[in-house]
Amino acid sequence: MEGITNSAEEQQPSTPLSNSWSNKQESSKNEKPKPVGGFVLVHAGAGYHSESKAKEYKHVCKRACQRAVDRLKAGALAVEAVTAALVELEDSPFTNAGMGSNLNLSGGIECDASIMDGKSLHYGAVGAISGIKNPVLVANRLLSEAQRGKLSAGRIPPCFLVGRGAHDWAVSHGIPPCPSEKMFSLSAYKRNKRKMELAEKLDTGHNQTKKRRQSCENVSFINGGNHGCLDTVGAVVVDLEGNVAAAVSSGGLAMKHPGRVGQAAHYGCGCWAENTCNMNPYSTAVSTSGCGEHLIRTMLARECSTAMQSEDAHQALLEAMQNKFISSPFLASEDRVLGGVIVLRCCRCVEAPPSQNIQGILVEFLWSHTTESMCVGYMSAQDSKAKTHISRLPPGTVPGQCLAIEGGVCRLSVVE
Amino acid sequence: MEGITNSAEEQQPSTPLSNSWSNKQESSKNEKPKPVGGFVLVHAGAGYHSESKAKEYKHVCKRACQRAVDRLKAGALAVEAVTAALVELEDSPFTNAGMGSNLNLSGGIECDASIMDGKSLHYGAVGAISGIKNPVLVANRLLSEAQRGKLSAGRIPPCFLVGRGAHDWAVSHGIPPCPSEKMFSLSAYKRNKRKMELAEKLDTGHNQTKKRRQSCENVSFINGGNHGCLDTVGAVVVDLEGNVAAAVSSGGLAMKHPGRVGQAAHYGCGCWAENTCNMNPYSTAVSTSGCGEHLIRTMLARECSTAMQSEDAHQALLEAMQNKFISSPFLASEDRVLGGVIVLRCCRCVEAPPSQNIQGILVEFLWSHTTESMCVGYMSAQDSKAKTHISRLPPGTVPGQCLAIEGGVCRLSVVE
Repeated sequence: MEGITNSAEEQQPSTPLSNSWSNKQESSKNEKPKPVGGFVLVHAGAGYHSESKAKEYKHVCKRACQRAVDRLKAGALAVEAVTAALVELEDSPFTNAGMGSNLNLSGGIECDASIMDGKSLHYGAVGAISGIKNPVLVANRLLSEAQRGKLSAGRIPPCFLVGRGAHDWAVSHGIPPCPSEKMFSLSAYKRNKRKMELAEKLDTGHNQTKKRRQSCENVSFINGGNHGCLDTVGAVVVDLEGNVAAAVSSGGLAMKHPGRVGQAAHYGCGCWAENTCNMNPYSTAVSTSGCGEHLIRTMLARECSTAMQSEDAHQALLEAMQNKFISSPFLASEDRVLGGVIVLRCCRCVEAPPSQNIQGILVEFLWSHTTESMCVGYMSAQDSKAKTHISRLPPGTVPGQCLAIEGGVCRLSVVE
Repeated sequence: MEGITNSAEEQQPSTPLSNSWSNKQESSKNEKPKPVGGFVLVHAGAGYHSESKAKEYKHVCKRACQRAVDRLKAGALAVEAVTAALVELEDSPFTNAGMGSNLNLSGGIECDASIMDGKSLHYGAVGAISGIKNPVLVANRLLSEAQRGKLSAGRIPPCFLVGRGAHDWAVSHGIPPCPSEKMFSLSAYKRNKRKMELAEKLDTGHNQTKKRRQSCENVSFINGGNHGCLDTVGAVVVDLEGNVAAAVSSGGLAMKHPGRVGQAAHYGCGCWAENTCNMNPYSTAVSTSGCGEHLIRTMLARECSTAMQSEDAHQALLEAMQNKFISSPFLASEDRVLGGVIVLRCCRCVEAPPSQNIQGILVEFLWSHTTESMCVGYMSAQDSKAKTHISRLPPGTVPGQCLAIEGGVCRLSVVE
């Protein structure tokens, strides 16, 4: 399988739990404190990350991990911690989500976001929402409102709201509006507009009759070039109760048609989280990034989650990315299939040496992408700081036809 | 499995092909005409269909079948025929789609629709679209535009548009706008508004602190009562080339929050269509109806499609409805799980007696629902008129906890 890098082994050691935290818990074991902690993996988009801005991308991933871990240490469950990570990612002007979102054809910002709670299997999503700084907060609020049960007159609470209605629902639920001009960068808009005009001129020059249809790879608005158009951001979390959660947020493709909704708001496509159950030996959480339409039509988040129930996590993700994405019959007409995923799976495990009051959670985490690069960060509540990494396709391989896959393992101790 | 009716056997004979059509084709076989024809199955919602209006529901199903068959006879492929059926269903004031759509909390109409082509596996969807008489035409246009390839500057064409952006895209692609006042019935709005006010009064009386949350089944806005709030409509088609297509369209829940998008616009939830391929012995097409949030969270259309690759179609659908819907872990907190599906699957079969120039397509079609009733119609291009049926749960069984399942078989002859 040409062009596949595999650095899972190199990355493997993550940080097995530092003993300090376990010892602290040990000392007060008679009080049976609620176990707090967990693990977070975030991404700042699968697309193209220039070397010149690598520091910023890594820095925002680091901050997002820290934010999630702070919540986990304060006793938050996975769904709250994953929301905290997303807020940090959305607030960065370097990511294509929330504050730094791409502009659509009308020069406006319309965001997609969704969140899934592996414990309740509830889900909340917003699509093409404007004037809200943190779309993930609206998705999270939809999720928690749905968990509260029916509305008056037996009405089912919505799990997916779009456009103006989503904005108004958010404001009526206490999420403050944010003027659009505070959210976007005029220079990004001008740059994208200029590129599209150039592309259309080139198209016209090449072939008058097909001017709208020519693919002009040199100025492509996705995956690369030097215009910094990244994609979706997201995170996956497991807390010390073993609950998983996943979330995703995106400003969508640059110069998209107003009203276009990408995978970040699509159930099964942008994120997925399922706690272990009778049928599934592992809890799994997935968040995707890349070309929304490719990720929607392959339902990549759910496909990866399903695949991760196989014994070998690395092999399972590799096969899923190869067979369910790059070679998917749903994308047979596409020359380049562009996307990336972050994945975690976990299960209870026995501590060595076995202890009656210490159990373990084995967390396997992976990322894989067919785009030129993908920026990720990860951290357990026992780490002093997050690790970050910009994963790149091997030199000479073709984006959209080859993939990179890396990951690691982390063991969390749970003092009962 | 209590409460399951099974009339598949009674329904089985559908109409095996009338000989007249085959003979006509035979007579001109030397000219090798392109085989035209096929089969259509439609539904006018899973919900509650009053006896007093049964005639109208059946009539619109009949017209929808006829419209699809007219297109098939004219040489149209499945995706075009399924669109024609949907236009007829949307145009009826009796169905909750297009012209007769439910009103949202603001008194507006916002529609969802989607379509999938089993041949190309392309998909198009619109959500919360206003001011367009036939949302399925926009979904179909998105599908066909996506099939044409990339836009300028390498931009990927959208497969899902919502709200104002969807409306403007439709108009710019030649689909005429329709003033909202032409699409809705004021009496329906007043009736629903009155019911909600009554429900809220009852809620307040019962428990001040939980007034927004009480479920007031007597005036429930879904599944029954005497207010005629039906749900989604849809259709599945196979043409004589063996291509399948599926579509769905909905005005959504009555008194829904503006911007709420239901399963009819959700990939994998509202409809699904996949031609046979190496991995799948059968071509399958599915369209769903019912409570959007239940159908989304269980991804029912795709689940049923996957299930239909098992040998026994009837048993496969029964198990899918029971295990992936009524008893789904995704809906564990729901007391009633409300929905319905229409399904067809087909494969090439040998004619009896075998003939070199006549091949057959064996079509198995089924419907199943957990709602009080579901109205369906079906027709092959060789039938003189459609058959229609209002399927009901057996007396004494509880909607949302039991199901009905029925269907039939039809053999299409293909003169090569």
